[in-house]
Amino acid sequence: MKVYPVIMAGGSGTRFWPLSRRSRPKQFLDLAGEGPLLRATVKRLPPLAAPADTYVVCGPAHARAARAMLRELPAANFIVEPCARNTAPCVGLAALHVAARDRKGVMLMLPADHHIGRPEAFRAALAQAAALAAKGHIATIGIRPHAPETGYGYLKVGAKLPKGKGAHRVERFVEKPDVITAARYLADGHYLWNSGIFAFRADVILDEIRRAMPVLGEQLGAIQRALGTPAYQRTLKRVFPDCPSISIDYGVMEKSQQIVVVPADFGWSDVGSFAALPEVRPTDHVGNVAEGEALVIDGQNNVVLAAGGRPVAVIGLEGVVVVDAGDAILVCRKDRAQDVRKAVDELARRGRDEVL
Amino acid sequence: MKVYPVIMAGGSGTRFWPLSRRSRPKQFLDLAGEGPLLRATVKRLPPLAAPADTYVVCGPAHARAARAMLRELPAANFIVEPCARNTAPCVGLAALHVAARDRKGVMLMLPADHHIGRPEAFRAALAQAAALAAKGHIATIGIRPHAPETGYGYLKVGAKLPKGKGAHRVERFVEKPDVITAARYLADGHYLWNSGIFAFRADVILDEIRRAMPVLGEQLGAIQRALGTPAYQRTLKRVFPDCPSISIDYGVMEKSQQIVVVPADFGWSDVGSFAALPEVRPTDHVGNVAEGEALVIDGQNNVVLAAGGRPVAVIGLEGVVVVDAGDAILVCRKDRAQDVRKAVDELARRGRDEVL
Repeated sequence: MKVYPVIMAGGSGTRFWPLSRRSRPKQFLDLAGEGPLLRATVKRLPPLAAPADTYVVCGPAHARAARAMLRELPAANFIVEPCARNTAPCVGLAALHVAARDRKGVMLMLPADHHIGRPEAFRAALAQAAALAAKGHIATIGIRPHAPETGYGYLKVGAKLPKGKGAHRVERFVEKPDVITAARYLADGHYLWNSGIFAFRADVILDEIRRAMPVLGEQLGAIQRALGTPAYQRTLKRVFPDCPSISIDYGVMEKSQQIVVVPADFGWSDVGSFAALPEVRPTDHVGNVAEGEALVIDGQNNVVLAAGGRPVAVIGLEGVVVVDAGDAILVCRKDRAQDVRKAVDELARRGRDEVL
Repeated sequence: MKVYPVIMAGGSGTRFWPLSRRSRPKQFLDLAGEGPLLRATVKRLPPLAAPADTYVVCGPAHARAARAMLRELPAANFIVEPCARNTAPCVGLAALHVAARDRKGVMLMLPADHHIGRPEAFRAALAQAAALAAKGHIATIGIRPHAPETGYGYLKVGAKLPKGKGAHRVERFVEKPDVITAARYLADGHYLWNSGIFAFRADVILDEIRRAMPVLGEQLGAIQRALGTPAYQRTLKRVFPDCPSISIDYGVMEKSQQIVVVPADFGWSDVGSFAALPEVRPTDHVGNVAEGEALVIDGQNNVVLAAGGRPVAVIGLEGVVVVDAGDAILVCRKDRAQDVRKAVDELARRGRDEVL
């Protein structure tokens, strides 16, 4: 079975400032030490999928950098969104491209900025999801939780799928919980982390979008009619910005009764903030992640990234993130790593665009 | 009465790394926001003393910088030690220079790296000490303590001096105490902080040195005989490195029964480490010292010096020192600011001399 991975690389977060910038968002950073996350995402797909069948969706500001990073992909496989409209329009647009080539082609929707510790197990889970997708299911990958994480959405697992090799129906999608609820989910055993990874046939997801989001369905129809004609770019630029900015989870998945889940465990991390780096990077014997000329003295469980070519000495501290990006410096309590955006907001307010 | 301030600028500490360097020790830094400490020390002396009567003792590596910073002082008033030998030889050498000009001249020995909040009160205390010195006393300034400081030496106050205007005999000098002892000293009321500021006549201190440190006395004698002759530099370079490296406190003061103290309170700080900056710098309403493009978000009682021309964002932290010196960065818990030397030691071990 042929599969068409579609890597969603349109993100533009601020949680990795000052390493990330508007011009170089998270998926372009080498956060896990195995090259830029986007490139690592593409490279871990074979032999499950070939580069010729792999698509990347990104914004116009990053298309050139993405192409330069992924020369093994055909130029036509870079799908450039005129503007960011969350994942539902992204999925729909990608489905049009895949469907034009293979109407029942199985798409694997993959975030560009995750880390996978065990790629072989990852490909096995994707293959299983793809097999379910080929039969018409919408399949997602659910990660077996090992901690009461509040940073992830959850899936509640329903009935076992006949001949599903461990796959289940999804009973419901659950928003990011508070820590008490997360602990309950963990103890319950019927909840999985929502990885944001999906498999479905192009025709199936387009049908689902038309049913659950009829306006988007019509907008995609207009783009589809222009696809492969000289009017494509013009039509895309006219129609796409008007598409609703809604996630595929919210817009389609949570409303569908057709979703199945493949439970898996392949060392997944969404690398949500600097605080997550110890999950994906080597640590010293007291839990410090240190990169570059980092000197951690009498300290533990710190993340110190000396990416500016200068020595960074950290003394007597625990659970602190220190990042020197060369032209800007961040020092942040690890459990406040989500609040890096506050610094970005303040710098934006001051008009310091050159460091944003 | 004419007084001869002698500013001891030979220090070479590491507690202000990465702002301080071997080539730019603490006394050359603008730590209190009123110019380099050495320059501020000279500038606060008039009208008590004239620049023409003010001496600076420093090492050969810093003589050029000191002269450039203090153009109002005669070139002959810079006394260059061939090498650092602690304060006893420094005091002795300076006394030779002053005595050659004015045998009974009253010297005011002043550290180059302290901060004085109330210069007028400071000059008044110095004038009182100088008056006592003119009568043959060795006078020191004792600071009334307002906290159980463990970073300072203490003086125990003895009998009141007749007609001493509040001056007392010093009963004894006390080494830096532990916090329990320091609290006892504070409660006791008879203990003062040893400011390291002394007043004495040149002839008196040379006599005291000869009595308490006969070897140093002879060495100074050899230098004295060469003073004002072409042999001076040669003799100094030959004799001075052999002088005992001992502080004037330990070598002379603690052994003398002649010491008197002027209790005073003039906003004194020895600016002992980055943790002391809130004593000498403006703080915001939650106790942060911020310099340059420092963004302190949800944090208090931090010292953030963005001296590298880059933004430094500090999020969710309390009691932390963050210093960007441009080519090196320090992040340190404030109560560990004494341990900055550990980073310096480690960088020295790695041979990173260009940032030391």
